[in-house]
Amino acid sequence: MEEQEVRGRGKPIRCRAAICRKAGEPLQIEEVEVAPPKAWEVRIKIICTSLCHSDVTIWEMEVPPAIFPRILGHEAVGVVESVGVNVKEVKEGDTVIPSAIFECQDCRDCNSKKSNKCSKFPFTFSSSMPRDGGTRFTDFKGEEVYHFGYISSFSEYTVVDIANVTKIDPSIPPSRACLIGCGISTGVGAAWKTADVKAGSTVAIFGLGAIGFAVAEGARLRGATKIIGVDLNPNKLKIGKKFGFTDFINPSSCGNKPVHEVIAEMTDGGADYCFECVGSASVVHQAFASCRKGWGKTIVVGFDKPDSQLCFNSNEVLLSGKIIMGTMLGDIKPKTDIPLLVKSYLDKELRLDEFVTHEVQFEDINKAFDLLLSGKSIRCVIWMDKQNPPL
Amino acid sequence: MEEQEVRGRGKPIRCRAAICRKAGEPLQIEEVEVAPPKAWEVRIKIICTSLCHSDVTIWEMEVPPAIFPRILGHEAVGVVESVGVNVKEVKEGDTVIPSAIFECQDCRDCNSKKSNKCSKFPFTFSSSMPRDGGTRFTDFKGEEVYHFGYISSFSEYTVVDIANVTKIDPSIPPSRACLIGCGISTGVGAAWKTADVKAGSTVAIFGLGAIGFAVAEGARLRGATKIIGVDLNPNKLKIGKKFGFTDFINPSSCGNKPVHEVIAEMTDGGADYCFECVGSASVVHQAFASCRKGWGKTIVVGFDKPDSQLCFNSNEVLLSGKIIMGTMLGDIKPKTDIPLLVKSYLDKELRLDEFVTHEVQFEDINKAFDLLLSGKSIRCVIWMDKQNPPL
Repeated sequence: MEEQEVRGRGKPIRCRAAICRKAGEPLQIEEVEVAPPKAWEVRIKIICTSLCHSDVTIWEMEVPPAIFPRILGHEAVGVVESVGVNVKEVKEGDTVIPSAIFECQDCRDCNSKKSNKCSKFPFTFSSSMPRDGGTRFTDFKGEEVYHFGYISSFSEYTVVDIANVTKIDPSIPPSRACLIGCGISTGVGAAWKTADVKAGSTVAIFGLGAIGFAVAEGARLRGATKIIGVDLNPNKLKIGKKFGFTDFINPSSCGNKPVHEVIAEMTDGGADYCFECVGSASVVHQAFASCRKGWGKTIVVGFDKPDSQLCFNSNEVLLSGKIIMGTMLGDIKPKTDIPLLVKSYLDKELRLDEFVTHEVQFEDINKAFDLLLSGKSIRCVIWMDKQNPPL
Repeated sequence: MEEQEVRGRGKPIRCRAAICRKAGEPLQIEEVEVAPPKAWEVRIKIICTSLCHSDVTIWEMEVPPAIFPRILGHEAVGVVESVGVNVKEVKEGDTVIPSAIFECQDCRDCNSKKSNKCSKFPFTFSSSMPRDGGTRFTDFKGEEVYHFGYISSFSEYTVVDIANVTKIDPSIPPSRACLIGCGISTGVGAAWKTADVKAGSTVAIFGLGAIGFAVAEGARLRGATKIIGVDLNPNKLKIGKKFGFTDFINPSSCGNKPVHEVIAEMTDGGADYCFECVGSASVVHQAFASCRKGWGKTIVVGFDKPDSQLCFNSNEVLLSGKIIMGTMLGDIKPKTDIPLLVKSYLDKELRLDEFVTHEVQFEDINKAFDLLLSGKSIRCVIWMDKQNPPL
């Protein structure tokens, strides 16, 4: 009975969305119609969303998986407006974080502590909903608008599958909660779950964006004693001082000495964990070279071009004892781990405030792109309607 | 006092050795002079030695690290004939297994449970002794003969650094003990220490030589429930039935289906652990493709050509959650782990008898090469003097 009632309640909503109509061109704020949630779906009123570098990567892309017109955005927090049939896990008014990876809570992967790669809904670069392959957005001409990362948070309302939704404690400020949707989970998870950073260890982080800083925060909380940041941008090194770094290396200031030699000197032979947060094969090789023989782990965190190859000398892999691994969303299982990250912030352990360097109103969303592209922001929070939050 | 006495006792020994004078040509049994052990060195009377594929690889090699004349052989057991000054760990008459990797027992690596890559004496493709860079063999013309793998066991006597020597329980039959010097340690160690195979898991092993079989033995002892052998040689599959395999795949009998798809069907999506025991980049890629997403480990065990490259798609590493790792001597720490492997055999847990398919006398050493090259043997034990063992 209740299910019928909820489904009956659903009507399309007209609201504003920032649409990407052409690669690399400013997003356009337009009116869209957001369909009511179908079975297993949730319609969310977005409170705020932050800009992650993956949005920019896809925004710049001219070829598939790029597709137009599209609503980007995947790091967000919102409030459930309505739910489709079969949705029992959340209800109207719940505060939720959507995530680009799924947790069906039923498959072999979701039942394993080792994997966050749901088998029922494998992650793909899809531009639509996971169950019926359709879209839930229509523009003013009545044409469909594509989704991004199963989230599309650059819209006042969006529709997300329940397998991508995590209910959270609403007492966390929204501008902090949204970060956990992607960047913080990826970085902190890479340190905690993928690499399993141990107390007293040494860590080198290549690429100081939000994810690199989040790795540092994860490593700090695990008690790493040396956290080395590597970036070519001196501005990043300055921002990084607010985080737990103990050392910085600007490769352009090392003279003829390769970065891996500088790191070897700082760490008695190489760092225990090297995180590549740039998305560049050559930086992965630098990270691998900077790892301690015998046990060093190279963790690929940065997303590279689709055809990018990582090549290693076979016998170096054999003889060095170094391990190569990748991480998707920091190996976190959203429904299990996102609430723990929220709690960690509320308990004043995990630091999130330092990540938010800028805040803009939704109509100024293109400023957020400028700030990220110029290396000025770590995270810019985009408020859908700061004066009238839905809570 | 005792040290002086031991040093004073040392005289050169004349004995037979099988010398490799040219790449790929039969070894020549010649008389050599073996110098007495210097400080930190042990002179060993070899009881028996087995032929490992790395001996064959180096024997076939025409360019460096190949060097001539040389005494090959690195999988052996023997009895201490005499020791140099400072050697307290073993004494005359002790049964010992030499190993190609070092354990100084003092450096950061030797003190760590995670590494078997001694920092004081890093493994290299050296052809001489580790401390003074000299050789201890002289041929009948008075010219020096080079070492191999710090062992050179194709000689009735050899000189080995104490950092390469492990004292063992002499009650293990020599033809079983020698195998532990390299192949068994590498394979069993790869399963136990590198991959850390868990009970109930699935394992795929590419390349069924002694090392592949030893991986299977290690996986069986760890309680793996599915152990899949992959080899093109049907003879190997037949021999493999004596080991713990549950399934075999001959890639040439799979029709158009790639091996990784066959393995995915057998294992609900991919094996938990894939071991490459061939030494071929393309087989490493097959192994990587055959791993279970989310947690699968690809373990590079096979030694490839020095310039061989392993290339992986960057985003596949990122998104798949698969881990790539290599193993040198199965990550075993010789002085700690070799005695445990000996004990495991004596306790009737670890099976070694099945590995010995052939035995020859020293003068027939070239037969051992023929048997291995033709794929007929797994391990051929070469007895220095079976009628008169030194014990």
